[in-house]
Amino acid sequence: MLPDFDLQKFLSQLPWGIPDDADADYMRDCRWMQLALFEAVGAFLDDEVPVGCVIIKDGKVLAKTRNRKEQMNNPTAHAEILAITEAAAKLGSWRLEDCEVYVTLEPCSMCTGALLQARVKRLVYGARDSKAGAAGTLFSLHNDSRLNHKIETKAGCLEDAAVFLLREFFKRKR
Amino acid sequence: MLPDFDLQKFLSQLPWGIPDDADADYMRDCRWMQLALFEAVGAFLDDEVPVGCVIIKDGKVLAKTRNRKEQMNNPTAHAEILAITEAAAKLGSWRLEDCEVYVTLEPCSMCTGALLQARVKRLVYGARDSKAGAAGTLFSLHNDSRLNHKIETKAGCLEDAAVFLLREFFKRKR
Repeated sequence: MLPDFDLQKFLSQLPWGIPDDADADYMRDCRWMQLALFEAVGAFLDDEVPVGCVIIKDGKVLAKTRNRKEQMNNPTAHAEILAITEAAAKLGSWRLEDCEVYVTLEPCSMCTGALLQARVKRLVYGARDSKAGAAGTLFSLHNDSRLNHKIETKAGCLEDAAVFLLREFFKRKR
Repeated sequence: MLPDFDLQKFLSQLPWGIPDDADADYMRDCRWMQLALFEAVGAFLDDEVPVGCVIIKDGKVLAKTRNRKEQMNNPTAHAEILAITEAAAKLGSWRLEDCEVYVTLEPCSMCTGALLQARVKRLVYGARDSKAGAAGTLFSLHNDSRLNHKIETKAGCLEDAAVFLLREFFKRKR
C-alpha cells in the first residue's frame, strides 16, 4: 500500500493484483476494470465515494461513469445507474442484453436490481461490499432462481486497487 | 370487477377497498394512494405497465410520477426512481429522511434499494408482487437487520384497484 494517496503513483501502478497465471480472458477483464478504476479516481477527486463503472458491448465502451450522488443531490446517482441510463440511451433500448458491466465496487441492491431490470449478461466487480453488496456478499440478487433473469458474475477483479481507493477516501472523511 | 376497462368508471369508483372500520390514518393513506393510482392510470394510457408513485413530506406532495420505462428507453425509469429523483431535486438533498412513499405496486429490488439509499421513512404500497416484490414478498430488503436503514412498510393499501389496472393492462398485452 502507498503511505499516502498519490494519484500519479496510483495510476502508474495500475493494473494491480493481476495473478501471474492470468489468461487472456482475465487480462481482458482487467483492461476494462482499469477504465472503471480511472472513473473511480475521478469520483475521488470530486469528493464522491470512489466508484466507477464501464459498460461494454461488442468490445466497445457504451458507457463510462462514476458515482455522482453528492454532486447531483440524487440518491440514485450511483455509477451503475448512470451507466445503465447512458448505455440504454446510446442503444435506444432498455434491454442491455449482450452487455458486460465492470464496476469497481460490488453493486448494492438498487444497482444489482437495475442490472437485472436491464437484463445485462455479465457483471464483473472489484471490491466486495460486506455492508451492502447484493451480488454475492450480503444478498445474491444476481442469480436468484426465482427471478426471470440471472447475471453471470465475477467478483474480485483488481480488488486491491478498488479497496485502496475506498480506504483512502474514507480515511480522509474521518 | 368491471367487464371491460372503462377509465371514467374506474376513476369514479376510486378509492376502492376501504374497509368499513378504516380509521383516520387509513383514510389518509388511501388519499395519497389514490393520487398514485391516478398516475398509474396515466401510465396505462401511455401504454406503460401501470404503476404510479407519490412522495409526501409534511403533508405535501413532493413528487408524483408514473412508470416511463418504454417511453424513456430506460430500464431504471420505474415510477419510484423517477419520484425519488424528483423529490431529491426539490429538496436539494439526497436524504429523503422524513418522506413517505406511496406506490401502487410493491417495489422491485432496484426500487426498494433506491428507497433505502434515500433513507425514506415509510413505504405504503398497493399490489403485492409475487414475481419481483422486494418489500415483503420475494425479498424483504426494506427491513433487513444487516442494513444501515429500515423502512416502515405497509402493504395492500387500495390493492384491488392497483391489481385491477395491472390485470387489465396485461390482458391487452397477451
